Amino acid sequence: MSDYRAPIKDALFTLRHIGEIEQLAGTELYAHADYETVASVLEEQGRFMQEVFGPTNAIGDTVGLKWTPEGVETPEEFKPAYAKFVQAGWQGLNAHVEYGGAGFPEAVQTCALEFSTAANGALTMAPGLTTGAIELLQEWGTEEQKEVYLRKLVTGEWTGTMNLTEPQAGSDVGLSTTKAVPVGDGTYKITGTKIFISFGEHDMAENIIHLVLARLPEAPAGTKGISLFIVPKFLVNADGSLGERNDLRCVSIEHKMGIHASPTCVMSYGDEGGAIGYLVGEEHRGMRAMFTMMNSARIAVGVQGVAIGDAAYQKALTYSTERIQGSEIGGDTPGPVAIIKHPDVRRMLLFMKSHIEAMRALLVYNAAAIDLSRALEGEAAESWREVAELLTPVSKAWCTDVGMEVTSTAVQVFGGMGFIEEAGVSQHFRDMRIAPIYEGTNGIQAMDLVGRKLAMRMGGVVTDHLERIRATVAELDAAGDEFASMRTELSASVETLSEVTNWVMTNGLADPVEALAGATPYLRIFGIVTGGWLLARQALAAQSELNSGSEDKAYLSAKITTARYYAEQHLPQAAGLVPMVQAGSKVLYDVDAETLASV
Amino acid sequence: MSDYRAPIKDALFTLRHIGEIEQLAGTELYAHADYETVASVLEEQGRFMQEVFGPTNAIGDTVGLKWTPEGVETPEEFKPAYAKFVQAGWQGLNAHVEYGGAGFPEAVQTCALEFSTAANGALTMAPGLTTGAIELLQEWGTEEQKEVYLRKLVTGEWTGTMNLTEPQAGSDVGLSTTKAVPVGDGTYKITGTKIFISFGEHDMAENIIHLVLARLPEAPAGTKGISLFIVPKFLVNADGSLGERNDLRCVSIEHKMGIHASPTCVMSYGDEGGAIGYLVGEEHRGMRAMFTMMNSARIAVGVQGVAIGDAAYQKALTYSTERIQGSEIGGDTPGPVAIIKHPDVRRMLLFMKSHIEAMRALLVYNAAAIDLSRALEGEAAESWREVAELLTPVSKAWCTDVGMEVTSTAVQVFGGMGFIEEAGVSQHFRDMRIAPIYEGTNGIQAMDLVGRKLAMRMGGVVTDHLERIRATVAELDAAGDEFASMRTELSASVETLSEVTNWVMTNGLADPVEALAGATPYLRIFGIVTGGWLLARQALAAQSELNSGSEDKAYLSAKITTARYYAEQHLPQAAGLVPMVQAGSKVLYDVDAETLASV
Repeated sequence: MSDYRAPIKDALFTLRHIGEIEQLAGTELYAHADYETVASVLEEQGRFMQEVFGPTNAIGDTVGLKWTPEGVETPEEFKPAYAKFVQAGWQGLNAHVEYGGAGFPEAVQTCALEFSTAANGALTMAPGLTTGAIELLQEWGTEEQKEVYLRKLVTGEWTGTMNLTEPQAGSDVGLSTTKAVPVGDGTYKITGTKIFISFGEHDMAENIIHLVLARLPEAPAGTKGISLFIVPKFLVNADGSLGERNDLRCVSIEHKMGIHASPTCVMSYGDEGGAIGYLVGEEHRGMRAMFTMMNSARIAVGVQGVAIGDAAYQKALTYSTERIQGSEIGGDTPGPVAIIKHPDVRRMLLFMKSHIEAMRALLVYNAAAIDLSRALEGEAAESWREVAELLTPVSKAWCTDVGMEVTSTAVQVFGGMGFIEEAGVSQHFRDMRIAPIYEGTNGIQAMDLVGRKLAMRMGGVVTDHLERIRATVAELDAAGDEFASMRTELSASVETLSEVTNWVMTNGLADPVEALAGATPYLRIFGIVTGGWLLARQALAAQSELNSGSEDKAYLSAKITTARYYAEQHLPQAAGLVPMVQAGSKVLYDVDAETLASV
Repeated sequence: MSDYRAPIKDALFTLRHIGEIEQLAGTELYAHADYETVASVLEEQGRFMQEVFGPTNAIGDTVGLKWTPEGVETPEEFKPAYAKFVQAGWQGLNAHVEYGGAGFPEAVQTCALEFSTAANGALTMAPGLTTGAIELLQEWGTEEQKEVYLRKLVTGEWTGTMNLTEPQAGSDVGLSTTKAVPVGDGTYKITGTKIFISFGEHDMAENIIHLVLARLPEAPAGTKGISLFIVPKFLVNADGSLGERNDLRCVSIEHKMGIHASPTCVMSYGDEGGAIGYLVGEEHRGMRAMFTMMNSARIAVGVQGVAIGDAAYQKALTYSTERIQGSEIGGDTPGPVAIIKHPDVRRMLLFMKSHIEAMRALLVYNAAAIDLSRALEGEAAESWREVAELLTPVSKAWCTDVGMEVTSTAVQVFGGMGFIEEAGVSQHFRDMRIAPIYEGTNGIQAMDLVGRKLAMRMGGVVTDHLERIRATVAELDAAGDEFASMRTELSASVETLSEVTNWVMTNGLADPVEALAGATPYLRIFGIVTGGWLLARQALAAQSELNSGSEDKAYLSAKITTARYYAEQHLPQAAGLVPMVQAGSKVLYDVDAETLASV
């Protein structure tokens, strides 16, 4: 049983007011993605996920996977669910039209991915990784590679994987040692071991296209000596039919805390002489190709924060209306009441609701920035590309950290039942915990923000971001009384962000370690303020819809209240984190490793 | 394999400088517990836990429990480990001497419980619940009950349980419906179902003494109509031998996210007519008896925060010195280095270390306050009793919330390996999640702090607490430069706490819902500031030991640095939470339940 309801109304509201969906539909690239079409697509996709993926989620967690030397067996409910997914064509939602995709914007894909992930996060890992492979091949594949592999990935008939990590090379991909030796006929023989390969082996698709990073003989050390290869599970004959099994296998799967139904594979390439691989892009330029998909992959992990957070929130909200316990304080109702009446439960629910909507807005905004950078031209495109670059680490890290807090809060609402697996909410808590880790740990995201993104256009990109927030402060000025506290708090917090940004840039130039020591709390401040900004923009938009006579008063008023709650209660926390950023690195090294262990 | 090392040195430092161990040894009650004796006891107990309980922890998580209608089978390694525990006499550490206990202070017990919980939290639930039963019977049992049951509990030969919760009565114990009918011979027949009964059934002891809350016929509704009964698994013959099996059984055990080896039982009483029970204390006064053990039980759950947090920290620290990944930024070492060299990893380690030491100090201080209230007389005793009452909800809630953050941070240090069960750190993360829930959810602790504890002596108790912190500020004034930032930050944050306390009390009198709406962030502020205070006191004590020529320079200097880090980076966060407390309740209710669900 699944009780997940895709938040279609809120996704559409966010797409309209934050996701620039109307501007996008005005471009040639996305002319087909007008609002009405997007709405009907998301309604259909949301319903599909509720009805098809949703009911398989708890099953996957309980049943898990079965590994044998022949392969990995997914729960029996997965195969038909995935088959329906392929049949409905959801894999191609944002893929290029010329290779069979529907060509919808990333902003729309972000919402669809949220519904899919919330319905079944483990199963969604398969199409999620396939999307990454599609993006890579769209950009870097030869025409032949596109015809042979890309088309099958876009339909979802075949799935894709990303093979980066090795036992000694995790965050530090440059340490990888998997080898690729040219055979002479244009192909390469790949040998090596890759770990943490999601859906590296499974039984839902007839072929799996592995994208593998490997090193050519005499390649330079580090990331500049890594090349990218297509290594299919089954080789493909000239007529497109499946040929021989390639020399690669899944030698084991991991026993994990969560996403039990997503096989995390140890992949062995070339045990019998070498797996046949096909170079993608240029030799030694594999990392450059990987960067193509990095932004959307990181946004996709950020989506797990809002998706799994929302799935947990929905369960907690339902429970809070059904669980009768404790008297209403200061209320008229005699006897025990539903716990949603208690202020502390209310606080937890509003914390979750506000942060879910802030995360959704950030992710949609970030994805729309990618879309606009593609759909527009010249300076406008460049400006949106900068926004996407700047915000990606924040989308990934802030949304997964907050997503973790949201799922933990949902567990708390359940009380003792939250710890019992059958109640279902603990699965979300366990599933969520990987998201702050993979696709670049949140610490690495913070280093990316501080070490690379702030420096973009000599600080001009982050300054533009701050100016956009200040523009909203000005709009709040002109709005009614209900917006007064939002204005005050957003104004104060954007100046806090501005000052701490200045500190980080100044000190980071002098000594990078100083800036990096505070990178994580800095990213947190950035997320808090940006989330509050996007909620305030939604509140203004809601007021404007109300002024135009919208009938949906409860929903729209709640948008305003939610933004006000966040502004009053959460924006002020940004200032409390500033000392943590500015404390610098010295104190961190004053206690040496040995003394840290002295107990 | 277990790599847990009991932090004996830091526990002893904390007992000496925070736990008033010398003052305690000067009292008649604890004259036998002089520092040297305490040190040797804790060294022995810590080693025992490392060697005997520690190696069974991961096994318990993996193997779990086996339920049959006949009983619950614990992992085969548990029985011998528990037998050694009984043989060593650790159960009686803090029990009264006249019934076979060693009569050590609660402050010492807190440290011993920390080592035990860190070594194996699930197994420690059995002695932990037994301790609660011992405390109840010491205070409320008749001489006969003490001779028959208490002595066997103190040796650990029998274990005890607490039976409060029923399906419809969790946080709201007053809703319980389990019945007790007088038989006429002084005994009662108990019928009803209790849930969430830890170690309600197991195979490690020959008898289990259930302490059960039940309602007599025509008892008043609510908590004032609840009586407390001893309901043994096996009835005890006049000669002390075990007699008939009582009419009670474990009908199922829960499938939980963590503490897999601690059986969480559904207990059914009286399926065949009624389980025989013996009244403890007076009729209808069962809750009063329960309150006897509530403070120490809540401190014991707080101990889980520091214990499991420390177990996770120790694993993360080791991993950070062994995992080679990434180049040192701004360093001289070429090539990849141990990740402990990276500032963000350093930040995570120091966050964990500082908070573990702050939690340990808070718990020891709280427990010592109980001891002093027992060992001293008159106003001094009363003053310490007040301290214990005031701090107990903070010890429980702040330490479990922070403990959760610490274990989550430890998972993060492990990167992808943190999500793999075999690495072991994920067990701590899962085990930890129940602690913010049971023994009164953290929301209930916050309500207790705001609704009851602040009001004690018309605010005089909390005012005294603030004055003690201010006294330390004055001491920091006189200390050297290294204490300057500690002084500044502690001074600012204690005034923040003072002001927000004033706000809560003033507004709480006018409208309790206003105060309760901000109770959770208020407790958080209280914990942050009190933790910083206790670290500062330790730093001053460390300086004084250094001044006296102590040789242990690395350890003592690290105490000072750790306190400074916390003061500079964490104390300022208190101010950021004030608006959350003072926002009041209105905004929480502006979005109604239906609209919360509108997506």
